[in-house]
Amino acid sequence: MLRPETYEDIVKLALKEDIANGDITTNSTIPDDKQMEGKFVAKQEGIICGLDVMERIFQIIDQTIQMKFMVVDGAQVEKGDIIATISGPAAGILIGERTALNFLQRLCGIATKTHKFARLLHDIDTFIIDTRKTTPGHRMLEKYAVLTGGGKNHRFNLSDGVLIKDNHIASAGSIATAVEAARKKAPHTLKIEVEVESLDQVSQALEAGADIIMLDNMSIEMMEKAVKLIDKKALTEASGNMDQKDIRKVAETGVDFISIGGLTHTITALDISLRLSQ
Amino acid sequence: MLRPETYEDIVKLALKEDIANGDITTNSTIPDDKQMEGKFVAKQEGIICGLDVMERIFQIIDQTIQMKFMVVDGAQVEKGDIIATISGPAAGILIGERTALNFLQRLCGIATKTHKFARLLHDIDTFIIDTRKTTPGHRMLEKYAVLTGGGKNHRFNLSDGVLIKDNHIASAGSIATAVEAARKKAPHTLKIEVEVESLDQVSQALEAGADIIMLDNMSIEMMEKAVKLIDKKALTEASGNMDQKDIRKVAETGVDFISIGGLTHTITALDISLRLSQ
Amino acid sequence: MLRPETYEDIVKLALKEDIANGDITTNSTIPDDKQMEGKFVAKQEGIICGLDVMERIFQIIDQTIQMKFMVVDGAQVEKGDIIATISGPAAGILIGERTALNFLQRLCGIATKTHKFARLLHDIDTFIIDTRKTTPGHRMLEKYAVLTGGGKNHRFNLSDGVLIKDNHIASAGSIATAVEAARKKAPHTLKIEVEVESLDQVSQALEAGADIIMLDNMSIEMMEKAVKLIDKKALTEASGNMDQKDIRKVAETGVDFISIGGLTHTITALDISLRLSQ
Amino acid sequence: MLRPETYEDIVKLALKEDIANGDITTNSTIPDDKQMEGKFVAKQEGIICGLDVMERIFQIIDQTIQMKFMVVDGAQVEKGDIIATISGPAAGILIGERTALNFLQRLCGIATKTHKFARLLHDIDTFIIDTRKTTPGHRMLEKYAVLTGGGKNHRFNLSDGVLIKDNHIASAGSIATAVEAARKKAPHTLKIEVEVESLDQVSQALEAGADIIMLDNMSIEMMEKAVKLIDKKALTEASGNMDQKDIRKVAETGVDFISIGGLTHTITALDISLRLSQ
Amino acid sequence: MLRPETYEDIVKLALKEDIANGDITTNSTIPDDKQMEGKFVAKQEGIICGLDVMERIFQIIDQTIQMKFMVVDGAQVEKGDIIATISGPAAGILIGERTALNFLQRLCGIATKTHKFARLLHDIDTFIIDTRKTTPGHRMLEKYAVLTGGGKNHRFNLSDGVLIKDNHIASAGSIATAVEAARKKAPHTLKIEVEVESLDQVSQALEAGADIIMLDNMSIEMMEKAVKLIDKKALTEASGNMDQKDIRKVAETGVDFISIGGLTHTITALDISLRLSQ
Amino acid sequence: MLRPETYEDIVKLALKEDIANGDITTNSTIPDDKQMEGKFVAKQEGIICGLDVMERIFQIIDQTIQMKFMVVDGAQVEKGDIIATISGPAAGILIGERTALNFLQRLCGIATKTHKFARLLHDIDTFIIDTRKTTPGHRMLEKYAVLTGGGKNHRFNLSDGVLIKDNHIASAGSIATAVEAARKKAPHTLKIEVEVESLDQVSQALEAGADIIMLDNMSIEMMEKAVKLIDKKALTEASGNMDQKDIRKVAETGVDFISIGGLTHTITALDISLRLSQ
Repeated sequence: MLRPETYEDIVKLALKEDIANGDITTNSTIPDDKQMEGKFVAKQEGIICGLDVMERIFQIIDQTIQMKFMVVDGAQVEKGDIIATISGPAAGILIGERTALNFLQRLCGIATKTHKFARLLHDIDTFIIDTRKTTPGHRMLEKYAVLTGGGKNHRFNLSDGVLIKDNHIASAGSIATAVEAARKKAPHTLKIEVEVESLDQVSQALEAGADIIMLDNMSIEMMEKAVKLIDKKALTEASGNMDQKDIRKVAETGVDFISIGGLTHTITALDISLRLSQ
Repeated sequence: MLRPETYEDIVKLALKEDIANGDITTNSTIPDDKQMEGKFVAKQEGIICGLDVMERIFQIIDQTIQMKFMVVDGAQVEKGDIIATISGPAAGILIGERTALNFLQRLCGIATKTHKFARLLHDIDTFIIDTRKTTPGHRMLEKYAVLTGGGKNHRFNLSDGVLIKDNHIASAGSIATAVEAARKKAPHTLKIEVEVESLDQVSQALEAGADIIMLDNMSIEMMEKAVKLIDKKALTEASGNMDQKDIRKVAETGVDFISIGGLTHTITALDISLRLSQ
Repeated sequence: MLRPETYEDIVKLALKEDIANGDITTNSTIPDDKQMEGKFVAKQEGIICGLDVMERIFQIIDQTIQMKFMVVDGAQVEKGDIIATISGPAAGILIGERTALNFLQRLCGIATKTHKFARLLHDIDTFIIDTRKTTPGHRMLEKYAVLTGGGKNHRFNLSDGVLIKDNHIASAGSIATAVEAARKKAPHTLKIEVEVESLDQVSQALEAGADIIMLDNMSIEMMEKAVKLIDKKALTEASGNMDQKDIRKVAETGVDFISIGGLTHTITALDISLRLSQ
Repeated sequence: MLRPETYEDIVKLALKEDIANGDITTNSTIPDDKQMEGKFVAKQEGIICGLDVMERIFQIIDQTIQMKFMVVDGAQVEKGDIIATISGPAAGILIGERTALNFLQRLCGIATKTHKFARLLHDIDTFIIDTRKTTPGHRMLEKYAVLTGGGKNHRFNLSDGVLIKDNHIASAGSIATAVEAARKKAPHTLKIEVEVESLDQVSQALEAGADIIMLDNMSIEMMEKAVKLIDKKALTEASGNMDQKDIRKVAETGVDFISIGGLTHTITALDISLRLSQ
Repeated sequence: MLRPETYEDIVKLALKEDIANGDITTNSTIPDDKQMEGKFVAKQEGIICGLDVMERIFQIIDQTIQMKFMVVDGAQVEKGDIIATISGPAAGILIGERTALNFLQRLCGIATKTHKFARLLHDIDTFIIDTRKTTPGHRMLEKYAVLTGGGKNHRFNLSDGVLIKDNHIASAGSIATAVEAARKKAPHTLKIEVEVESLDQVSQALEAGADIIMLDNMSIEMMEKAVKLIDKKALTEASGNMDQKDIRKVAETGVDFISIGGLTHTITALDISLRLSQ
Repeated sequence: MLRPETYEDIVKLALKEDIANGDITTNSTIPDDKQMEGKFVAKQEGIICGLDVMERIFQIIDQTIQMKFMVVDGAQVEKGDIIATISGPAAGILIGERTALNFLQRLCGIATKTHKFARLLHDIDTFIIDTRKTTPGHRMLEKYAVLTGGGKNHRFNLSDGVLIKDNHIASAGSIATAVEAARKKAPHTLKIEVEVESLDQVSQALEAGADIIMLDNMSIEMMEKAVKLIDKKALTEASGNMDQKDIRKVAETGVDFISIGGLTHTITALDISLRLSQ
């Protein structure tokens, strides 16, 4: 379950920026006691994600607004499918419509994109994972969308995962000293990941006892050699503009994970509309 | 100038979600007094937007971090161009890198997309404008990116513009009564816009004294007739999945504005990287 | 409807400053289960405004407190009229009493003052409007009170209206260049208002295509000439210590709006008391 | 000294409500590097209060804005006196002007009103004090203005003073039991005040050991008897629509304090303007 | 009653720091609709305090969680006693368990410690009081625990009590001038306390009219003399590492209050566990 | 480095609760321009922790206050040692003194206690670690104090570590299914820890591939067997009222970590005082 605490800040910020001093148009033209009904309809094929967020938004605006979900998060919908119905005070529905859709469409977009990649690997034991290239303020929601679309999550933030990159290595002196330093300071509950760019670095990371080795920007050939070299002694993650590559070939090298920044840094909102009747 | 007050909430939220309990990797491997230098480099062609936001982020993390901008917001860069340089405490730079890029790349992406549309109309007196289909919490920043890319802004939120849509009309009884109601309640400093879908509605909106008439989902032919009918007595705005249409043809109907939701609901981050040296 | 989101910040701040570490007197002397009833009684004639705010305050303190309204916002009450009744836990009622009255009495005071001005113009097509000279943090509530009292609202803040004043004109070079600059940068959904002090400036503003012309500190005679000169080609607003002037005469010049800072910068709380019985 | 922590919440709220998405007019017409100078000039006689708050507001907007104070808080100014000068970026000065004046004018108004009452008692050992009838969110600032105007402060909030009123007495059973209960629960660092309406209640309060006795709504005659009865065994406070009474006569009864709600519930902003030159 | 407003900030902060991005373990292993029951059991003897806080925490997490209290705040429990029962969604109970216990155990610890001291003085008219040496952010809760354990409260913060210490005296020039200054500036509703270290200072404080005299770090002998000298003309408070002294002997000097920093600066959590069954 | 972002919320809350409406005593008796100097002196032996937090507090109050540290975090001090000096405006120093000491003394207390345990194991390869039994709102600071005292940290919160306890196992069906579920949903960057109470459960956890096995409340004998059984195939953590046990004997079983709730749930503030001179 996606706990509301994890997205309440961004939802409140979004409502504040859109409602501001109130909806003047609705205030002027819609009586307070006017009721309305509506349907959220998919206008293209995709994976649904974010229903709870949408419901929460309307609940914050008016507790008497009722929603019924026709599908669950993770369901695939076709063009024309009804996703959810809504009923209640017209003013509240109109005020929340845009913000609710802004969240829902983006999250569906991310889940749908993830799903496309994940389906390509349905018969291989390699997982699609996200990165920290998420929309600022939407980290948790977008990681949830990746999970919903069939991917898995990399670390949430800078403090719940150790990822040693080139600059850390350069500063610490070597992969060995960097891993050693992390092992000394970081909680033992976190795995230690090292980003490498050559087979020599792969060997160093293995020797240093890295738990995860990120193969950054390697050719398919080098990746294959790296995976063989590592030989299951560490988890392996392929990285580097992966959304533009042949994911299938990358997966066939035997890496455990493929991280794709584009899952969240390049977003196509799923087309969904709210059809209201009075 | 983009005032920092208008984006400080989303920047703080973003830093909190990424820094969380601190950057464990950097804490373990980078000495507090280590200094670093770096260059922000464009990896593809585009329009730059968001330099101040990026600088603010590093300033919040560490006031001693120095940035120099090689270009200004709105400048076009080519692949390989240096956008800005940075120098200061290595820890601070590494901690802020991802969040700064997450903002910068998205804003550049929006400005670049807007610019592409705007350039198509460089010799016509029609403006590309945005909508409220922005990323939740990023409204002001994204509207600024549209402005930077050569577009103009529609209303910021529900309270600083009157936009009478089908549901408002239905509830008020007619376009005339809806416009009348808005004129009575809304500040006289705001124009009144009416969304119409037929020529008949265009006539009604004109008669009601609408300041702006939004031609929603009309064919090019109907749009031409509408523009003629309106005859400069109101501003005209074309709307409806405009990013998938031939914008040039739409503009040639003589509408004053073309609003494009896709400027902000479907985002491709501009590829920018930070190259660090120690 | 006045949406709670638009005043929740100031209400929370008010409760925090008054409740602080709890009501020691009530804690000491009133049992937790003690119930009470009370009546809010007008002690002088006036216009009621702020009932929802008052109810919200008691709801925040204790959800089981019940209120019944005897009148609605905008109603005129006479000395002795019961405005509302309240019942529920005595502690909660006593804790909220002062803060609730502090809001209610001020808002009634503003509505009452506005009403007095508006009534003077009941047979003229000129509206009383407010300014940005509101109590810091109370902008939306006070503008709502002006509306409730029969006035209309000027812009809410610096970003939802364009008002070009002397300093803007001086910096831009002329009224024409200032209006041109605003038209280029501001959303087309906002009207452009220019503050003028002479008939010559009126002509310039007209030529520049100003939507609203504010006649600042003009004599009745000059105002009459200005209105004639403008001849409905722009809306007109009279401004300048209007609460000390003969509003009727100002209105008879034919201006569309008269803005009065004193509606909100000089406040006389309406005398209202809460009479409790146990 | 008035510590900034005590008013930062209300100042931030005020700036947020006025700046919102930025000052469109200034953004359009004033270059970022434009400098300006100005003078805050009193347009009527009064007592100055709130200089630090004003400076803080401009500092928050732009740290490079410079202010020089010509007077100090508490000083009396005449019409035409320069209160302060300001210089720095024009945009920042224009953006902060209204909010700064909104605070300054109200606080000067309260200090000036207090001063008028206090001066009436300059040769008597009775102090004018405030109440909790302050503007919501402005409690500390307004109490500071009362102090600045020559008054003294009653308790700041519900938890830093014990004030036993009729409802507390009724609930506790008697004045004696109420005082006893408060003495048991409240910190011994707080005095216990009892509100009384008759001479009989005065006697009860005295016997109960009240530290302060509030004489509520008594006639001058009854007040004189009460003061005699109390005979300095407790402090005495006169209360009840005091701004409409002959304060001098009230003071001559010998009461120690006269509390006046109208000091803060009915506010006349002092007329002050900012004259700018470029 | 302990009002929720007085502890909501610290409770929210605590939940945010522990829940962060959600409870991964529970999310993975506990179905959303799984229900659970549990008992809070005392694992050692002590005084219960903080039941409302605990309930509030679970309510924030999930409104459908039900608690029943077997005892009230202030009750003494023995090892094995059931303090409260809980039932509802398993996920919510598991997520809130640690934070709820972290509050409850500390507050019970403080109440228990206070009770031990208070019991020593059960037959003497001297009260145990707390200080400002509380856990940052927990002031009100810990003062409530002291009250619950049978102690009384000193001032809550720097603004609701006057306590003149050596540095204030040195700066003001003398005890007399310091007291005089405080009487002039502080609300008359607050008593004035002076900290003294010698009999000579006691005399000065008495003469200056101090309401409370704090005898700091005095020997039992000096304290006895001081109490005699003061002779009920002021309240007396003994202070100075009191938790390491023979409280009984201190009390027998006749002081009214003994303040003990260790009540809150040195905390032993009461051992309480939540036993769950499915 | 302990980043300020990680403790700013609790520091602000602490300052707000103590300063409230300002320091009345200091306001009354200390001139604004009065300067002061002081020394923070250890009154007992211990480990220093929290110097940056202390400095930050004074910086927030007054940026002109200067501190010099005589030691660094982690240093051992003896009774009488000077920890730091301070100089600057007297008012600011007096206002911040109590809050600064409240943080510093607690953090030193935790570091000192941790150090005592850690020293007992100086020659064994077993680490003392903390738990989530921290003071609400102080999690990061207290974990930093444990690190400073020579311990290591367990997970920071519910989302950056997987810890499968009895209730998770019961709900999932078995240790195997619970571990499997966590592996599927949790980021691969986190290790999976299982709490076990018997040797049989140890075997199950090993088979399930747990990364860490927590031996809860086991006797020394059972622990020894468990460690042998695990044979370095997983990390081992001993848990269960460890502060009352012979830590040395526990460590000699060969466990990798010993977690001690008492490091943070039972706190003895280190005795430190600020000696001021004028």
